[in-house]
Amino acid sequence: MTAGAAPEPPVPSVAIAGLGLIGGSLARDLTAAGWRVLGFDRNHATARRAHEAAAIAVGLDPEEPALDRVPLVVLAVPVDAAASALRAMLPWLPADAVVTDTGSTKVGIAAAADQLGLADRFVGAHPMAGDHRSGWEASRPGLFRGARVWICAGNARPAAVELVRRMWSAAGGHPDLIEATDHDRLLAWTSHLPQAVASALAATLRQAAVPPDVVGPGGRDTTRLAASDPDVWTGIAMENAGNLADALDALSARTHRLRDALRNGDRAAVRAFFVEARAWANEGSGPSVGPFSPPSP
Amino acid sequence: MTAGAAPEPPVPSVAIAGLGLIGGSLARDLTAAGWRVLGFDRNHATARRAHEAAAIAVGLDPEEPALDRVPLVVLAVPVDAAASALRAMLPWLPADAVVTDTGSTKVGIAAAADQLGLADRFVGAHPMAGDHRSGWEASRPGLFRGARVWICAGNARPAAVELVRRMWSAAGGHPDLIEATDHDRLLAWTSHLPQAVASALAATLRQAAVPPDVVGPGGRDTTRLAASDPDVWTGIAMENAGNLADALDALSARTHRLRDALRNGDRAAVRAFFVEARAWANEGSGPSVGPFSPPSP
Repeated sequence: MTAGAAPEPPVPSVAIAGLGLIGGSLARDLTAAGWRVLGFDRNHATARRAHEAAAIAVGLDPEEPALDRVPLVVLAVPVDAAASALRAMLPWLPADAVVTDTGSTKVGIAAAADQLGLADRFVGAHPMAGDHRSGWEASRPGLFRGARVWICAGNARPAAVELVRRMWSAAGGHPDLIEATDHDRLLAWTSHLPQAVASALAATLRQAAVPPDVVGPGGRDTTRLAASDPDVWTGIAMENAGNLADALDALSARTHRLRDALRNGDRAAVRAFFVEARAWANEGSGPSVGPFSPPSP
Repeated sequence: MTAGAAPEPPVPSVAIAGLGLIGGSLARDLTAAGWRVLGFDRNHATARRAHEAAAIAVGLDPEEPALDRVPLVVLAVPVDAAASALRAMLPWLPADAVVTDTGSTKVGIAAAADQLGLADRFVGAHPMAGDHRSGWEASRPGLFRGARVWICAGNARPAAVELVRRMWSAAGGHPDLIEATDHDRLLAWTSHLPQAVASALAATLRQAAVPPDVVGPGGRDTTRLAASDPDVWTGIAMENAGNLADALDALSARTHRLRDALRNGDRAAVRAFFVEARAWANEGSGPSVGPFSPPSP
């Protein structure tokens, strides 16, 4: 145990705010791992369903969540709702409770936690799991099994970081530390760019009046993310706008080069394009990504 | 039976040239459906393996394929090898045998068949199935089950078209007629653009030094096609260069608009982008795509 950590309660317990795909799946896995899970959702019916499914031990009132002495609170809400959810929860937050989140961007929520005086007990987190579906109905056991979970320690005390790592390990994830700024820059490429590309392809096909059912299996994979919740992704894209715009510029440089090679009948350049793409796909694990520096355009 | 068709042989038989993902899978399904399948591949060992797997009844010598009286020959080779394979096969082609192919572009091979005097018995075909893997090892039963199979009748006699339709139905596919020019324009959007986009994303991530194992599940789906054979795709892209370049321009217009919205902090425009993408993903079957007109940029 890390020096200075409070004694662990006999049964680890956690409150999860937001029981959608991520919060609901986390509730299922932690309950299955023996944790006592309190849950609430702005939609009362969702907490009721989670309770009926035995994914949570207690469903709390979202207006007055009696968090009692719970040592860990998880915000599992869209990134553009996280800061206000945190503010609304402040009056109910147990003294010394560790607070964490699950959002796809980490700089903004860390700044909000700082402003609210939570710097020493806020730990950002982001599981690399999920899919285009959302809501409690999409939640399921094992969603985080084997998934990398980015942990942004910021200025939190070591015991707070340790508790969040422990929670994700209990859910089957692999916690990995990263700075919030590096996280957001990296995620622009590994997650937000793929989402933008899938959505751009879908919107292009819509404009071309090509219905989904004439697209082949490869096209279906490439556009699968386009079904993602537009509000969730508007929030993420706005939070990470500069990094995502940089990534989009790099992608455009590639598509322009391919377009030019096709117009010029330059077979060697076309082949080089596909060869480089496959070289990436065939790469094994790369070096640690730690402080990530995107390429200059 | 269509008027003027030759009487069907008691056991339908077919020769398949090229036993890779498509040819090998077709051989498996037709054999399973009771057809007598002769097969050959420029790689002798491949035909031997297909014979050992009982996917073909007879393995032919690729240099001197004794096609005997086989009424149907399938070219299942990369699109940029199809015309020369057809030319090489001419001396062995039984009189009146119907010839078909499986390539992802249809204008070029139809013109080659015309030039070789095969217009009345060449029927282009293209199953909307397959994946990023290739070769006999990737072939499998049921690959075409439920898949749309585009059929380009061209100037072939009705009985030739009927025989090709019948073969694909026996393999579990759904044949659907389309003009070769419409096919290539449509496929630029439904198949070649998704491949180009997946490859562009992969090449962009490679340039950014982001290894595949830090990409989340959504990014893995969006880049899956990047592992496709670069030579196969160079051939397809060069054959369909103009149409694919048009589709890439339409995609770039979208990514530029998103990039600008992000740089300008225009939340409404960012949201509209994701909303339109999801609208496409949620579309059911569209109208018949028949004569397809891509949008003006």
